[in-house]
Amino acid sequence: MHYCGICHTDVHIALNHLGGTMYPIVPGHELVGVVEEVGAAVTKVKVGDKVGIGCLCDACFNCSSCKKGEEQYCQVDGWCHIYNDKKKYGHIGGNPDTQTFGGYSGSQVLHEHFIMKVPDALPLEQAGPLLCAGITMWDPLRHWGATKGDKKMTIGIIGVGGLGTMGIKLAHHLGHRVVAISTSASKEAMAKSKGADAFVVSTDPASLAAEARSCDLILNTVAAAHDLNTYTSLLAESGTLVQLGVIGTPHSVNQLGLIMQRKSIAGSLIGGIKSTEEMLEFCAKH
Amino acid sequence: MHYCGICHTDVHIALNHLGGTMYPIVPGHELVGVVEEVGAAVTKVKVGDKVGIGCLCDACFNCSSCKKGEEQYCQVDGWCHIYNDKKKYGHIGGNPDTQTFGGYSGSQVLHEHFIMKVPDALPLEQAGPLLCAGITMWDPLRHWGATKGDKKMTIGIIGVGGLGTMGIKLAHHLGHRVVAISTSASKEAMAKSKGADAFVVSTDPASLAAEARSCDLILNTVAAAHDLNTYTSLLAESGTLVQLGVIGTPHSVNQLGLIMQRKSIAGSLIGGIKSTEEMLEFCAKH
Repeated sequence: MHYCGICHTDVHIALNHLGGTMYPIVPGHELVGVVEEVGAAVTKVKVGDKVGIGCLCDACFNCSSCKKGEEQYCQVDGWCHIYNDKKKYGHIGGNPDTQTFGGYSGSQVLHEHFIMKVPDALPLEQAGPLLCAGITMWDPLRHWGATKGDKKMTIGIIGVGGLGTMGIKLAHHLGHRVVAISTSASKEAMAKSKGADAFVVSTDPASLAAEARSCDLILNTVAAAHDLNTYTSLLAESGTLVQLGVIGTPHSVNQLGLIMQRKSIAGSLIGGIKSTEEMLEFCAKH
Repeated sequence: MHYCGICHTDVHIALNHLGGTMYPIVPGHELVGVVEEVGAAVTKVKVGDKVGIGCLCDACFNCSSCKKGEEQYCQVDGWCHIYNDKKKYGHIGGNPDTQTFGGYSGSQVLHEHFIMKVPDALPLEQAGPLLCAGITMWDPLRHWGATKGDKKMTIGIIGVGGLGTMGIKLAHHLGHRVVAISTSASKEAMAKSKGADAFVVSTDPASLAAEARSCDLILNTVAAAHDLNTYTSLLAESGTLVQLGVIGTPHSVNQLGLIMQRKSIAGSLIGGIKSTEEMLEFCAKH
């Protein structure tokens, strides 16, 4: 975890300047730190506040997606990524001709909109992984109705790695029944220790059959080639399987398997600022 | 259009009886007629009422899907089809050992739940095609929020045939902007005469580009092999493409195309009784 100062001074990008318009990539997309300085119009944070920045550091503010707080889907020229992206919208400090630098840079100067207060109850080192991994799991839970608290759902989580573990914990603390799904039976104990109520070994037909049509929502974190139709059998009527792990090769999808029980296959990126702030509050409480 | 009597007397299936347990298929799944007789407990219709029956003629009544009026997704042993299906749930009249017979049989005896009153303003011959084609288009409009009247959406309709024409008319009269999509430029005038506001020739990249990311919802009626990724480019952020035409071969789906704008690909069957009744009322008004 890198602690960077976040303020309205320069970004000290000279350190990374190799000359011309070529810059090295400075990665890091789950940033936490303390506010060093604020502009006169800033109201969201004050000097000394613990804050975080995720992948998302700028957007247009005015398109249909930005207006509803879904800046990650900005319609103008896409959202601006915290590292190795163009400074497209003019809200990012430092030399406008450089690309963005991530969490391993010395500090950041960003519009206050993209800076999120970290609740006191949440240590900075625990807030960090929430800012990409956490929000990647939280936002589809939010979009598909699992964060409202009005109904208990069954949530499937495919893959018990970094994202998957985060998903299990979030869905569990939201009060849902959680089905962890993995090709590896050895993950069961760990998944259950994080809050999974059931465990499916996806290479075992009997294990799959035991949870057939049980999941209202499945979050799929797998980022390697796999057969999606294996998992759609776990979806309940009108359920949605959300793809989060990126795979370059197309999926083969049986249409009839979707039609007969009104199932959906969706994709989801990270989340917007409002969604991320909600998640930080939720995690501080739980 | 076949006009069958619907009552609580026999179904006169002897006419179709070839002996043993083998029966011919008597098709027809968009039935309209007049009530001839009712059981003592029937409250929904009375003798002489104009009524309709769709594909759906029985279900369990007690599962999670039936309880919310989505009998077409009955969880017990599936919904019961009006022809060539087993009489699974005991609510269908006539010899329980025969299969169901459709709209070309002499009459039907069904539980009142599956019989829908046809509004006076709607001629029977116009109500008929609504009971499968109409509801196939109406139900996804309803499920994905296009029948509430609370917001104007852009609705894409792929395929300008029987289902597609029905979809254009419904979406238009619901107040939405309608984009008709076809491989055939010759369908444009017809599509626009039914209420389409725009027309996309899906084999023409410029025509596709003109409606890129415009559609909140797309209803895909195509029942022949095609590349779904052509059409997902037309979906707006968080939009859904719904598969209605049945294709046996799997679709190849680019995951990144879904993830970057939170798009979904779904499937949908017909609709439940409540949804069908709502549609009949809507069509009678428009």
